Amino acid sequence: MLVQKYKDMLSGKSVIRQLSEFATARGQEIGYENVFDYSLGNPSVPVPQDLTFTIIYYATMDTQLAHGYSPSLGITSVREAVAASLEKRFGLPYRKEHIFMASGAAGALAHAFRLVTEPGDEILTFAPFFPEYHPYVDLTGAVLKVVPPDTENFQINFEKFREMLSKKVMAVLINTPNNPSGVVYSEETLQKLADILREKSSEYGHDIYLISDEPYREIVFDGAVAPCVSRYYDNTIMCYSFSKALSLPGERIGYVAVNPNCKDAEVMINMCGQISRGIGHNCPPSLFQLVTARMLDQTADLSVYETNRNILYSELINLGFTCVKPGGTFYIFPKALEEDAKVFCEKALKYDLILVPGDTFGAPGYFRMAYCIDTEKVERSLEALRRFVKEQYS
Amino acid sequence: MLVQKYKDMLSGKSVIRQLSEFATARGQEIGYENVFDYSLGNPSVPVPQDLTFTIIYYATMDTQLAHGYSPSLGITSVREAVAASLEKRFGLPYRKEHIFMASGAAGALAHAFRLVTEPGDEILTFAPFFPEYHPYVDLTGAVLKVVPPDTENFQINFEKFREMLSKKVMAVLINTPNNPSGVVYSEETLQKLADILREKSSEYGHDIYLISDEPYREIVFDGAVAPCVSRYYDNTIMCYSFSKALSLPGERIGYVAVNPNCKDAEVMINMCGQISRGIGHNCPPSLFQLVTARMLDQTADLSVYETNRNILYSELINLGFTCVKPGGTFYIFPKALEEDAKVFCEKALKYDLILVPGDTFGAPGYFRMAYCIDTEKVERSLEALRRFVKEQYS
Repeated sequence: MLVQKYKDMLSGKSVIRQLSEFATARGQEIGYENVFDYSLGNPSVPVPQDLTFTIIYYATMDTQLAHGYSPSLGITSVREAVAASLEKRFGLPYRKEHIFMASGAAGALAHAFRLVTEPGDEILTFAPFFPEYHPYVDLTGAVLKVVPPDTENFQINFEKFREMLSKKVMAVLINTPNNPSGVVYSEETLQKLADILREKSSEYGHDIYLISDEPYREIVFDGAVAPCVSRYYDNTIMCYSFSKALSLPGERIGYVAVNPNCKDAEVMINMCGQISRGIGHNCPPSLFQLVTARMLDQTADLSVYETNRNILYSELINLGFTCVKPGGTFYIFPKALEEDAKVFCEKALKYDLILVPGDTFGAPGYFRMAYCIDTEKVERSLEALRRFVKEQYS
Repeated sequence: MLVQKYKDMLSGKSVIRQLSEFATARGQEIGYENVFDYSLGNPSVPVPQDLTFTIIYYATMDTQLAHGYSPSLGITSVREAVAASLEKRFGLPYRKEHIFMASGAAGALAHAFRLVTEPGDEILTFAPFFPEYHPYVDLTGAVLKVVPPDTENFQINFEKFREMLSKKVMAVLINTPNNPSGVVYSEETLQKLADILREKSSEYGHDIYLISDEPYREIVFDGAVAPCVSRYYDNTIMCYSFSKALSLPGERIGYVAVNPNCKDAEVMINMCGQISRGIGHNCPPSLFQLVTARMLDQTADLSVYETNRNILYSELINLGFTCVKPGGTFYIFPKALEEDAKVFCEKALKYDLILVPGDTFGAPGYFRMAYCIDTEKVERSLEALRRFVKEQYS
């Protein structure tokens, strides 16, 4: 008999996916270049040319090295390279024993959740949040609970957080720079979060782990650097993906890095190898382990995202939107011009503007624009945006 | 708190891995070319040259196509190509709706088990069997039970199978051509298996699914072709990996193909996309989806495995071993020359012969040799094999 819980999920279609399908269909009618598709977080800039050369290098040099089995924790030289790079950048004494190579951030998170939660345990995250966290967590048997947003600045609503941080909470999941708000958690936010976690770990007599989902770490604007979450809290499990920084989301390559100051770091990494056996993970692709290990100091040309942020943010403010200025990522999360963001986004479709209502991100009344598209298209979309606001809301 | 079940697994080291580590260490002493390492099933022949060209083609042509997100069921054109190839080869009406692209056979099996079993349900498999099936199944909450071997020919022990096929059994898992025996299930075996499954499905009032793990499907000797399991039983979930046939086990690429005659085939494939969300799967690498879709009619040069089989089989028979002749794969599974195969394999180490005792494969008293190594090394190992047998057992 087929398992009902997965069958039941088939009826609940993802809003983002529906919008993206609409955009594709509309594109077939009027030309996709005329659809202002802000629905998907799919990087639009090409991979660095060095990355292509490195693929060719490994694919032609030694096919058994390039395509052979990886050890279950990842290729040793790759883990060493990742550890050395993290140590250099963040000043924590990472060694290969703290690194587990994973199939993107989704793979990394799948291991992190299973490391520290049993069925029935709670994981807290903060709105606005990436909606896939729900199936990621809930299907493990643990329970994801969402702390309501601090809509002033999309940092953390600490009052609500303290209320919800019960003894059942085994892990707190954060995502900074944040999808969908584009906000980077400040040092002050991270310090305060860490203080509360230490206080409550001690009060409850069990460790509370901080799971830090960092795929947007390298996409930060105005010359800033995102504060390194692990530096604030020893029991941090960093989940990284190369998808966004190197523009290869389809290659499923990332890692888990447990803070070297976490007392169980090495055991946890070894446990990841066991968790893999139960979820069919069995290492990320060998070729992309080798390739990304050579690309640790490079990114794709991410400047287009900052350019797009600048154009969109200033236009939205001019048009009277309330909007927290994104410090990174390729998302912006303004307040809709009417209470129901779903109605707002529905109306925008008439102008071929594909916007995603904030409800599934845990922030009703807001909407997300993913501006990982060509700047030229962002510019062309402004006219549609102006018409939309003028005709519908003035 | 760290999850105990994974922590506990750390103490149980894999026998195969320990032997492989011994081989590596011994290789550092005497040169790896002098260690006759029959421990690992790691393909030894290079990928086809066309595959390397195809990697370069996609990596240089359109990096956003090559490295971008795949839809959650796999890239549409890839699923179409796989379906067309299966239809042509096996005469069943496969369409893309029956294909789910997965991260190798391990990824495919992780989905198959979750499709049809709830915690507490049973899955039966047949000794000798791939020992990783235990964590693969047991960590889902289902229970793997192993039907004892038919040591005459390593087909199926139907008497024991009937005894164990209770109402709690929701799926039967087979692996033909088989690791570790090298045996290919005959048409007669598959027909009888299917008859029993139909009979019992009807008796118990629920479907019993046949999960067919087929990574060795293309490695068959003597000009034979492995019978297509799906042709015998409608409720078959085929789990395929390109790892062995194309020599790219590190790239994690394969698929689930549900028999088009299974009444729920399309629903099951859609369910796979939901299961993925809970286990961090999120598609196999895009590049290798595209590449393997162009390589469906090719394999690496697999003839070396048949050559090795011939050399080893005839030498083992000459030396007085009892041994079923492998019809495929790159494994052979002879009876040890004393009752305890662990002691036998331990003694072999003195001759730098790395053999794996059959206990973990569910067949104590036997041992496995993985002969996916250079033929030249197989030939050099014969002298050590002869000395071992002569000095220890005559």
